[in-house]
Amino acid sequence: MPADIAGAKAALSHLDIEEKEVAIKAASRDFFWYSPVLKDRLDHVVADFVVRPRNEAEVIEILKVCYAHDVPVTTRGAGTGNYGQAMPLEGGCVMHLRHMDKVKEIHPGRVICEPGVLLKDLDAATKEHSGQELRMFSSTWATATIGGFIAGGSGGVGSCTWGSLRDLGNIIRLRVVTMEEEPRIVEFTGEELARVSHAYGTNGIITEVEMPLAPAYDWVEMFVATDDFMDAARFAEALANQDGILIKLATVFEAPIAKDYFQRVAPYVEADTNLIGLMVAPQSMDGFLTFLGRRPEARLIYRNDDFDWARTPGPVFEYGWNHTTLRALKVDPSITYLQVRYGYPNHLDLIEKMRNELSPEVLQHLEVLREGGKVIFAGLSLVKFTTEERLDEIIRLHEEAGAMIFNPHRYTLEEGGRQTVDDRQLRFKKEADPKGLLNPGKMIAWDDPDWDYSRMYAYPKLQAAE
Amino acid sequence: MPADIAGAKAALSHLDIEEKEVAIKAASRDFFWYSPVLKDRLDHVVADFVVRPRNEAEVIEILKVCYAHDVPVTTRGAGTGNYGQAMPLEGGCVMHLRHMDKVKEIHPGRVICEPGVLLKDLDAATKEHSGQELRMFSSTWATATIGGFIAGGSGGVGSCTWGSLRDLGNIIRLRVVTMEEEPRIVEFTGEELARVSHAYGTNGIITEVEMPLAPAYDWVEMFVATDDFMDAARFAEALANQDGILIKLATVFEAPIAKDYFQRVAPYVEADTNLIGLMVAPQSMDGFLTFLGRRPEARLIYRNDDFDWARTPGPVFEYGWNHTTLRALKVDPSITYLQVRYGYPNHLDLIEKMRNELSPEVLQHLEVLREGGKVIFAGLSLVKFTTEERLDEIIRLHEEAGAMIFNPHRYTLEEGGRQTVDDRQLRFKKEADPKGLLNPGKMIAWDDPDWDYSRMYAYPKLQAAE
Ligand SMILES: Cc1cc2nc3c(=O)[nH]c(=O)nc-3n(C[C@H](O)[C@H](O)[C@H](O)COP(=O)(O)OP(=O)(O)OC[C@H]3O[C@@H](n4cnc5c(N)ncnc54)[C@H](O)[C@@H]3O)c2cc1C
Ligand SMILES: Cc1cc2nc3c(=O)[nH]c(=O)nc-3n(C[C@H](O)[C@H](O)[C@H](O)COP(=O)(O)OP(=O)(O)OC[C@H]3O[C@@H](n4cnc5c(N)ncnc54)[C@H](O)[C@@H]3O)c2cc1C
Repeated sequence: MPADIAGAKAALSHLDIEEKEVAIKAASRDFFWYSPVLKDRLDHVVADFVVRPRNEAEVIEILKVCYAHDVPVTTRGAGTGNYGQAMPLEGGCVMHLRHMDKVKEIHPGRVICEPGVLLKDLDAATKEHSGQELRMFSSTWATATIGGFIAGGSGGVGSCTWGSLRDLGNIIRLRVVTMEEEPRIVEFTGEELARVSHAYGTNGIITEVEMPLAPAYDWVEMFVATDDFMDAARFAEALANQDGILIKLATVFEAPIAKDYFQRVAPYVEADTNLIGLMVAPQSMDGFLTFLGRRPEARLIYRNDDFDWARTPGPVFEYGWNHTTLRALKVDPSITYLQVRYGYPNHLDLIEKMRNELSPEVLQHLEVLREGGKVIFAGLSLVKFTTEERLDEIIRLHEEAGAMIFNPHRYTLEEGGRQTVDDRQLRFKKEADPKGLLNPGKMIAWDDPDWDYSRMYAYPKLQAAE
Repeated sequence: MPADIAGAKAALSHLDIEEKEVAIKAASRDFFWYSPVLKDRLDHVVADFVVRPRNEAEVIEILKVCYAHDVPVTTRGAGTGNYGQAMPLEGGCVMHLRHMDKVKEIHPGRVICEPGVLLKDLDAATKEHSGQELRMFSSTWATATIGGFIAGGSGGVGSCTWGSLRDLGNIIRLRVVTMEEEPRIVEFTGEELARVSHAYGTNGIITEVEMPLAPAYDWVEMFVATDDFMDAARFAEALANQDGILIKLATVFEAPIAKDYFQRVAPYVEADTNLIGLMVAPQSMDGFLTFLGRRPEARLIYRNDDFDWARTPGPVFEYGWNHTTLRALKVDPSITYLQVRYGYPNHLDLIEKMRNELSPEVLQHLEVLREGGKVIFAGLSLVKFTTEERLDEIIRLHEEAGAMIFNPHRYTLEEGGRQTVDDRQLRFKKEADPKGLLNPGKMIAWDDPDWDYSRMYAYPKLQAAE
């Protein structure tokens, strides 16, 4: 059935509906434009209308009405996702959760809240309440929502200690509304969490989350410099392997990233300076400085609690994770990026190999990550973009060497992931979204079960560019 | 110069001096008798007098007076050490720190206190103040002091997450008094901490400690059972490698330890049941139960927040670390133990090999430990003692297989450690204890620099048995 947009809008007119065209356009976009590939394909995508529910009852109402009128619904937290995750490929309704920002309960080690609360506001509430904070956050902490992080993100600042969002224990409970004739409310824990976490809102809308907390400290943020790149990588790895030193971030930037793209750092480094960004717990600073003292190859050039730089560089984590790409893009619009997994135990060798083959076309940006109890690296490499063909070749070179790629130049779950169908997500979609109206075009397994991944998937119902 | 005991006692008579013979005898002993080897050699050891300083000024006075009168001083926390660490081999003064139990300052992530406070009381104070607790504690938590833990211990409950006491960051600062004509006060941080931590009080007396804290949770204590021993070991390792599940203890007991030695557990297990003791953070229980559900070979038989056993087994950690030995000894006095390091990455293979060779003469008791960022096992194996020769042979079999032994049947630092001189400790002893009066007989490097470790060291000035 074709979508009855007018009918749905009319039925929802008593809710907070956005009417202004520029606002609708803005609420239909995310950070897809980090990818030249996606920029080409998705730039024109726009919703028919935007609605902002105030509570779960309104979410249910919206889903019910849109179901009745065959209107696709794409959920939006803050729209800071990178792969067009939050973009309504077919148009329809964008459901924006900004009003659903209540922090409901805080206990030792956990918090219960609505999905639309900003990571920063959630941390402020738990810190104020009992000196606690999220175990990990996206580097878009200041602007992103917890619901968007769970439905679209993977990990971030804190993952060097706690692993990824998908690891057991990093999400406690999700409350989810389905898109059926009569929407149901379901509570997921344990094995069930994988149905809807990192599912881009394709099979249910998260209306409440319960997350574990860690103690909030006044993290000491630092930059450490080395002349040799592998020294920087080894430094970050060795630090993360210090069991008694508590860290929240360890990021490695190949030269000349710091000099070329980090404006406020540039005066204090050379073009051949490799940089390490760190967050260390204050009670671990004595241990950290002892560790540093054993490594004459590394120089502490900045710490946020004691520095003489003319201007503060701002939070160090806003240089890491995908903020590195953002800073590079601002200076050189031809930059894009790749997401690489350098797994244990060959991670350092693999990094060295890829760098030898591809630098400076591909510059190494590494994030320390825990995976299966081991310290490994996630690469968010900066790529000097030339053509889509060359980008694909660079990806192939990584894969051939044994470095797994999570392709950020694709808008489907499968292509951005392990290129395999997630059965748990697909099965739940069949139950929870029988008409396939939730964030359409993002799950290949739903649209085209026999797809063979030999080329980039193109959603047949993608809006046509004007 | 011979010790002038009477002169020292007279000069210290205004302090809290213990006069009763049985009390002096009691304060001259520790848990050395876990070792039949040490029991034979040290049972008669007794101090000439015991003095209990109330503050640092009195510590200084005692050291000064004993220095002037050439009286050896052996410091005592609570005397729960295992290797005669706290025993005055030459007699002289035992300085008992029980009065020095003040908790001075508590901050986010750290605490400053006197050395004589019990671990349990320290945790109670930091928990009450701000929901914090020590990162790790000896399983003698209820009776041991923080000073004794630092000067004599190595790690314990919490080391599965935080590593060992010697790891950078696990001690922040130690304030130390030397034994010279004019005792000096020195503050140690960073590299200097290794001079006096785990030095048995041979080169300075710790009068103040600053330790890192972790959040205090209402840990869920559990017993999990398996039929196959290696399944239990793999379970504990895999759990510790779950980055998102916060644990404080993971202990593995080979059958029939649980049936034979754990009275209150025995009714619920069989002779061939292998047991795993666990402490898991409450916010991690959903993750833990999910993990457990994936392992049908493991059965949850007890959790302290929900059980139907006739009697509570008490704290699960009081089954682990060296409490396992204690429980076995109570049932079978011929049991003793070994301390083994099963290092990464061969730990599991090595454990299986040693078990195949030596069980049931040697029963596996394993503690999950972090070392250099990796999950490994510390073994506190239960040994059915026959002769000293056979015990030495069992040690040799471990060493030949590549499992390092920390011999608990020796009273010197070197023999209980890596059989090498700790230069940092020796050098500081030369400065801080020029007459060699602090806990004499415990540092071979001081007494006999050319000792070759081919046989057990026998301190020449050890009191003669009557
Ligand atoms: C500069 C920059 C840095 C970044 N750094 C990181 C990083 O460190 N780690 C990381 O993981 N990501 C990172 N990202 C990606 C993104 O910012 C994060 O994943 C962020 O947490 C998304 O939150 P959001 O509120 O903006 O979500 P949105 O972009 O609004 O949504 C993300 C996805 O979740 C779905 N969704 C949102 N809310 C719900 C809900 N309640 N129920 C169901 N589905 C929902 C959306 O439909 C969409 O598919 C970065 C992006 C940028 C631009
Ligand atoms: C059943 C049992 C279980 C145990 N479990 C563990 C365990 O899990 N982990 C572990 O590490 N150990 C363990 N131990 C050993 C011991 O209990 C601990 O190391 C404990 O922390 C020692 O504290 P204490 O106050 O009893 O020290 P004591 O035995 O009094 O002293 C230990 C050593 O430190 C010196 N010392 C004490 N105070 C000072 C000071 N202020 N300055 C300088 N030197 C000082 C003493 O001279 C002595 O050499 C166990 C022992 C038993 C009997």
